[in-house]
Order: sequence, then structure tokens, then C-alpha cells
Amino acid sequence: MGAVAHKPKLYEQVAERLEEAITAGTLRPGDKLPSVRQLSLRERVSISTVLQAYLHLEAEGLIETRPQSGHYVRRRERPQLAEPQLSRPASTATLVTVSSLVASVYQSMGDARMVQLGAASPSPELLPTRRLFRELNALTRDARDRGVQYDVLPGCVELRQQLARRSMDWGCSLAMDDFITTFGASEAVHLCLLAVARPGDTIAIESPAYYGTLQAIEALGLRALEIPSCPCNGMQMEALEAALTRRRIAAVLVVPSFSNPVGSCMPDVRRQRLVNLLDAHDVPLIEDDIYGDLHFGPERPRSCKAFDKRGNVMLCGSFSKTLAPGFRVGYVAPGRFRERVELLKFSTSVTTATLPQYAIARFLQSGGYDRHLRSLRRRLCAQVQRMTSAVAEFFPEGTRVTRPTGGQLLWVELPQQVDVLTLHAKALEAGISIAPGPIFSARTDTYRNCFRLSCGHPWTPRIEAAMATLGALARSLA
Amino acid sequence: MGAVAHKPKLYEQVAERLEEAITAGTLRPGDKLPSVRQLSLRERVSISTVLQAYLHLEAEGLIETRPQSGHYVRRRERPQLAEPQLSRPASTATLVTVSSLVASVYQSMGDARMVQLGAASPSPELLPTRRLFRELNALTRDARDRGVQYDVLPGCVELRQQLARRSMDWGCSLAMDDFITTFGASEAVHLCLLAVARPGDTIAIESPAYYGTLQAIEALGLRALEIPSCPCNGMQMEALEAALTRRRIAAVLVVPSFSNPVGSCMPDVRRQRLVNLLDAHDVPLIEDDIYGDLHFGPERPRSCKAFDKRGNVMLCGSFSKTLAPGFRVGYVAPGRFRERVELLKFSTSVTTATLPQYAIARFLQSGGYDRHLRSLRRRLCAQVQRMTSAVAEFFPEGTRVTRPTGGQLLWVELPQQVDVLTLHAKALEAGISIAPGPIFSARTDTYRNCFRLSCGHPWTPRIEAAMATLGALARSLA
Repeated sequence: MGAVAHKPKLYEQVAERLEEAITAGTLRPGDKLPSVRQLSLRERVSISTVLQAYLHLEAEGLIETRPQSGHYVRRRERPQLAEPQLSRPASTATLVTVSSLVASVYQSMGDARMVQLGAASPSPELLPTRRLFRELNALTRDARDRGVQYDVLPGCVELRQQLARRSMDWGCSLAMDDFITTFGASEAVHLCLLAVARPGDTIAIESPAYYGTLQAIEALGLRALEIPSCPCNGMQMEALEAALTRRRIAAVLVVPSFSNPVGSCMPDVRRQRLVNLLDAHDVPLIEDDIYGDLHFGPERPRSCKAFDKRGNVMLCGSFSKTLAPGFRVGYVAPGRFRERVELLKFSTSVTTATLPQYAIARFLQSGGYDRHLRSLRRRLCAQVQRMTSAVAEFFPEGTRVTRPTGGQLLWVELPQQVDVLTLHAKALEAGISIAPGPIFSARTDTYRNCFRLSCGHPWTPRIEAAMATLGALARSLA
Repeated sequence: MGAVAHKPKLYEQVAERLEEAITAGTLRPGDKLPSVRQLSLRERVSISTVLQAYLHLEAEGLIETRPQSGHYVRRRERPQLAEPQLSRPASTATLVTVSSLVASVYQSMGDARMVQLGAASPSPELLPTRRLFRELNALTRDARDRGVQYDVLPGCVELRQQLARRSMDWGCSLAMDDFITTFGASEAVHLCLLAVARPGDTIAIESPAYYGTLQAIEALGLRALEIPSCPCNGMQMEALEAALTRRRIAAVLVVPSFSNPVGSCMPDVRRQRLVNLLDAHDVPLIEDDIYGDLHFGPERPRSCKAFDKRGNVMLCGSFSKTLAPGFRVGYVAPGRFRERVELLKFSTSVTTATLPQYAIARFLQSGGYDRHLRSLRRRLCAQVQRMTSAVAEFFPEGTRVTRPTGGQLLWVELPQQVDVLTLHAKALEAGISIAPGPIFSARTDTYRNCFRLSCGHPWTPRIEAAMATLGALARSLA
């Protein structure tokens, strides 16, 4: 055995420095890169290392080779696309019935033969699996009995300590006892909904919203009130305020950082306003911060919880989008609802599985998580840019696309006349899976010309071909 | 590394054969065992192996050494105690409020300094941890990418295949697609309750009932209707039938095999009657079969699901009481509620964690589970007998105790005047944790002279001393 720590190879280091320069705009589309010999001298590496670095960047779609000329930063093929506009959902609360449509979409998302442009999970090659598994294997030697036994509520001490430390980066200073570990952010949100709402109650959400949230609302017999939201800055405060005065709302649920599906990121001032507004109305805020660690800019967005003075914010998060979806490890800091959420956690699943929690805690303790995040963010940023270029290149005139500053998702708005369910069906026939717009609303007649694109996979010729096919299909429907 | 298969040592094999003879009644309390030399000749093992086997059986409390005389099967110190009688809970449905009491009890259950006579989980030394961890380690080599990714609903194919095969032993013949894997039986029961009941609805349960079930009912804002139950044969059908005609009941929830806390086991004829009765009233049955594999007799009890013709039975189970509580792997076969339960599973926790499921599936495939169960059942049976003797030896006149035919729990009924919450408090001071009766009822004024005893730990002088202390405390309160 005796696995050793993964050090980036030389060519990866060279590629990363170039990638940073491209992401930061130091190198712009169309710029010529240094010649192989120049770079070899500058970086003090061999010619073959430089060649490998250039091949790698080319595979990622960041640069291109022009025969007899050299290497260039890849140009966007067309002028930048417009962003979609503010959403205008129906103003009444709706009993959600999105499930049957989701089920059929979800089926195709699990099909390995499809080109997966729909699912929102990072590709396994972006995850530090080897290092996580090393921690897991170490645990099976060092913590035998503990590993098979029930963990004790509120969850693994070491993990909660790490979360408390990390909460400083979120603008909070939570203590480890503020946290309860959960089976992913899904369980965290489920517990929060159970804690503050009863069947028939109304939950205000962004529009469009993650279909899993809609299903959680549907499953509990709740109503969804979709609030107009901006693809850039998230939920509109005026619209929410008006809704709060019109009817009783049991809770507001937002994904403030790099929301699913549109990737919006609420500015701090809006977060603060949201927290104050809900404090004034005594309505709890469920904050799903699952994408918060995936910022492309230098700073992590603060959490809404950072503005919470009364314990009114229930902060949910997980490691499913950054480390290991299949480990199912998440957390909730439920503020003043802590006791009720802990009771619900116990009666829902007793405690979170032991080994996955401890393995992640050890990985965090080792400092490996931050190093991994830096590289993951850079790669996702590059993949989002590459995918955006492909939309610009292949899709019909009038197509709009979001410009997320983090996460791994794009929201594409096609010309009005394109029916995305038809596009979805034709794409499936062509072996391509996308997430069509209607599953992101409680009313399945909305977002019929939109879809969500996942940028979780490194760019490959297979994905490029799929995007070309998808674009051609969309053009044929436009 | 290179761990090798765990073969029982020679002395363990010798001890096991004697233990079998004692459990089967071939060797009875007070019988003299063969001399060390005789046994050494008969078993063709060394003298020291026989001595080790006898030491082992003595440590387990099965035999005793009489100086200058030899080894004897341990005698029960007193005539067999009477069993508790049929429970007589209140006949009205109650909003459950057991949580705060449970929380304080539960706290002490997690305290490693306490002698744990309360918790219902098997002691780690009874679990095949090394073999499970070997499967887990193998998975981290063989199934890298799959191991970190989301599993796909309804859960690990290999595990569901094994469950389908095992369902033959339960008297069913379920297909793998009848199952959804869950985070333990707790999540399974939680999903079933969510699927068939809404806040305010009434759930009929056994009395006394597992406090986790009561909390699940409380957490969802449901009412518990406690049905009189016999410590031997479980829920009374006449009482249930009467309740069904008096009021609307959303579901009946039973633990038909070796129930928690009393260890009752419903006879087949009663199971059939229960299923037919609920069919006739169109009321779903939630069957929690978590202890079914722990029968002391040669045959596994059939599941109620075996009598289910209309898909009305929602069968829940897990590997928490037999393999690894901390893995949190269970399942549900929800019959005609399958679609709704799968939706709820997705929105509660997306899917069950990947690696723990696959590790258990591999262990089952290897045939290791059945071998392990045979040994676990023998040991639990011996521990239950040993604990029963200790109750007889140490507790006051008039104490009653159940005679379970499986599982790992005893229910002790003290003389009427003993207040078990006082006993619980005094026991805690003495470093002993028990599970007091009132947490097993929605009305915390019931079972005030009862408590649950866990037999999940191999007999040790520390446990013997704790039982003596506990008995003395009970006598002082009688």
C-alpha cells in the first residue's frame, strides 16, 4: 500500500500558472502564448514539460494551436451573449407537482451512455478521491470500533470543529455546538422545512429553483411561492416584501451563493436586507449554501447567517459539490431552531453515518481541502467559460446565457419559440441529457424555452460534439 | 496490509460446541462438564486449549468453576421470574411529548464512562468489523469513482439483489425493484410515516413502544394510539380491531419480531390476522423488522409482508442491529406506496451513501453474513439468559421479566411502588445507564415501574457488579 501525497506534476504547475493568467485576464482571448522554448527557459522546465502543459490546456479548451504559428488563448467565437432577464413567476402559491417530469429527466441523468450535460455534480476526476479514500482506510485501522458504531448527536466532533473554523470564512463565528451533521444538504433542508412548516404552509423560494427543493416542498405537502429573481443578484427584495405583507409565509428558502439553476450570487447588501426583513416579519430563513465554496473570484461570499443576530437563519451546507457526493455528508446550523432540528434528525435517521464524517474531518484537518478547492475552482471557472463559448458558437440567434461568478451551472434561455421539452426529447434520442427549464418551477408551464447546463465535466471532444448537436437541434426548433 | 480471513481459533470452536449444547438444553444448569483431560481427548485438542475454552465460557457467565470439583453449567440462582402482563395503555390518541425525557436519558447512553445497560445496539466485539472494513478497503481500490459519486435511486443494485434473495427467508419473494435502500430503518420508518400520514393523524402502535418511534411520530405532529400488547405475542388484535371501528387510523406501526422494548414475537396466525384486518380497513401497515434476523430458535420468524397480497405492508429493516449501526444502511419495501416513498427518499436525502451500501452488499455476497448471524444469535441468546439470571438474583421480590425468543432486550417490571425515574437517577449517580419505562409511552406517567435492559454486551465482572448495584437500588426503593 503506502500511498503518497498527491503533488501536482511539473506540467500541471506550468499549466495552472497559465490558466490563472487567462482566468485573471492577464492573457486575453487571441493573445499569443510564449513559444515552447521561451516558456521552457522562463519556467526552467524541459521542452517536453511545456508541450505537455500546452496539450493539457488545449484539452481543457483554453488555448488553441495554429499550425506554423504557435499557441493562442482561445477566442470567443461570437460577441458575448446577453444574460437572461429577471424571472416573472406567478404571484400565487402553488401545490408542487413537478415529480413525474423530474423522474423522467432524472432517469436519463443516471444513464452512463448519455453525454451528461444536465446533472449538477462535479465529475469524479475533479474530486480528491484518492486522498479521501486514504483517510477512510486509515480510519478502518485506527478507529475500528468507533467506525461501526452509531455516531453521537449532534455529530462528529472533529468535523464540527472544522466547520466552526471554516465559518470564519463565511463571515460567521459559529461554535461547533451550533452544528448538526446531516446526510447532505438535502437532509439539512428537509429537517429545516419539517421544523418550521406544516402541510399547506407556504415557502417562498427563488424562481427558477432547484427541482430537489421543489420536490422537498411537494413531498411535505407545502406550497411554493416563487419570487421573481435576477439571474445575477438573486431573489428580488421588493417582490419578497410585497409577498410577506400579502400572506403568511412559513419560511423563505434561498441559495444565495451560485444558486441552482441560474448561478446568481446575492450581494452582501441584499443578504443583509433579506435577514433584516425576515427578522421583522419573524419568518425563518433557510439558507442553502451548498455552492458557497465554489467562488471564481478571490473571496468567498459571506453567508446570510453572517448577518443573523436572532438565530433566525438556518444555514445548510454539504461536501457533495466539492468532495464526495456519495459520502452524503452535510450539516445544518439551525440557529434558534436547534433543539427541534436535532429531535427531527434523531427521528429521521438517528445520526449521520460515522466513517464518511470522520474521513472528511481528517481531510479538512490535513489542510487538503483548501488546496483542493483552489484547484477545483480554477477548473470549474475554465469549464464554465468553455461551455459559455460553446453556447455562443452553436446556439441560435437570440439565445441568452447566465454569467455566474461561481459554481458549475449555466442557465440558457433560448428564443421564445423553442420548446425545450421537445429539445430535451430530441437530445435524448441523440444521447445527450440536459435539465429542461420546466422542472425548475412548481408550474411546469414556465421556463419552457430554458434549460440548465452542467459544467462539471472537463472539456472533451465528446462534449464539444454534444454541444454542437444540441445547438443544431435548438436552431432547427427556432 | 493483506488482512486474512478470520478463522475461529481452536478454543473458540470448542467453546462454541459447548455453548450450543447448553443453549439447546443438552447440558442443563448444574450439569458437570467433562474434565479438562476428557474434553482434550474427545476434541483432540491440547489441555491448554480446553482450559482457554472453559475460561471463555466462564467469562461469558455460562459455566462456573467449583474448586476441587470441576466445571459446571451455571445454575439459575432463583426460580424463573414471572413475565410482565398485557399492557393497558390509555385508549385515546395522544400527541407525543416524550422528547425532553428521552434527551436526558439519551445523553447518558452516549457516555462511555457509564456501564451501558440501556442502549439497544450490539457491542462492537460482537460485530464482524474487520471483515466489513476489508470489503470497504477493497472498494476504495476497485470502485474508486463510483465510491465518491451519488448512488442511483432506488439504491445499490447488488444490495437489493441480496435483499431479494434473503426475502425468501422472511416468507416473501420480493424482487430487487421492490426495495429502496435507506439510512437505516429509522429513515425507512420516517419515509413511510410521511408517505401515509399528515399532521394530526393517528398512528396505532404497540405499547410499550420504542421511543424512537414515538419521537418520529412526535416530530411529524402525529398522534400515537397505544394498543394493548402482550410481552410474548405482541399487539392484541381485538383491541386493534375495536380501535379501528372507533376512529380513523392513518397507519399501524408494529415491530412484530423481538419488539423493542419488550421482545415480543407475533405468532404467524396473528400476523396473518393483522394483515387481513388492515386490508379490510384499507389502513397501511408499517412493519419494522429490524430485529428479525436475531431469532434464538432455529427458524427466522416470517415477516408480516409474507401475508401481504395487496401491497399494503411497508416492510422496513436494516443492518444496524447485526452488522454496523454506524454505516446507517437500511431498506424499505413499500408495497403499493413505492412511488411516493421513492420521491420522499429523493427529497429527504437524495440517495443512501454509496460505500457503506456496497461494502455490506459484498459481505452478504460472500456468505459471511449468515455465518456471522449464527454466532451472533448464539451469543445474544447466552447474554439474554445471563442477564435474566442476574435480574432473578439481584432484584426485589415481585420483579417480572420478559422471556424473549430473539433480539437483545429484556423488559423488567419492578414492584408497583418502585419509581423507575428515581431508580434511573440513582443508577446514573452510580455510573449505570438504563432506559426507564416512561420513555416507551406517549404518556410519560405510564411504565413508571419498568425499564429496558440491554443484553448487547458480553457478560463481564463490570456488568455483574452494575447489575448487583442496580438490584440493590431497586430493593431500597421497593
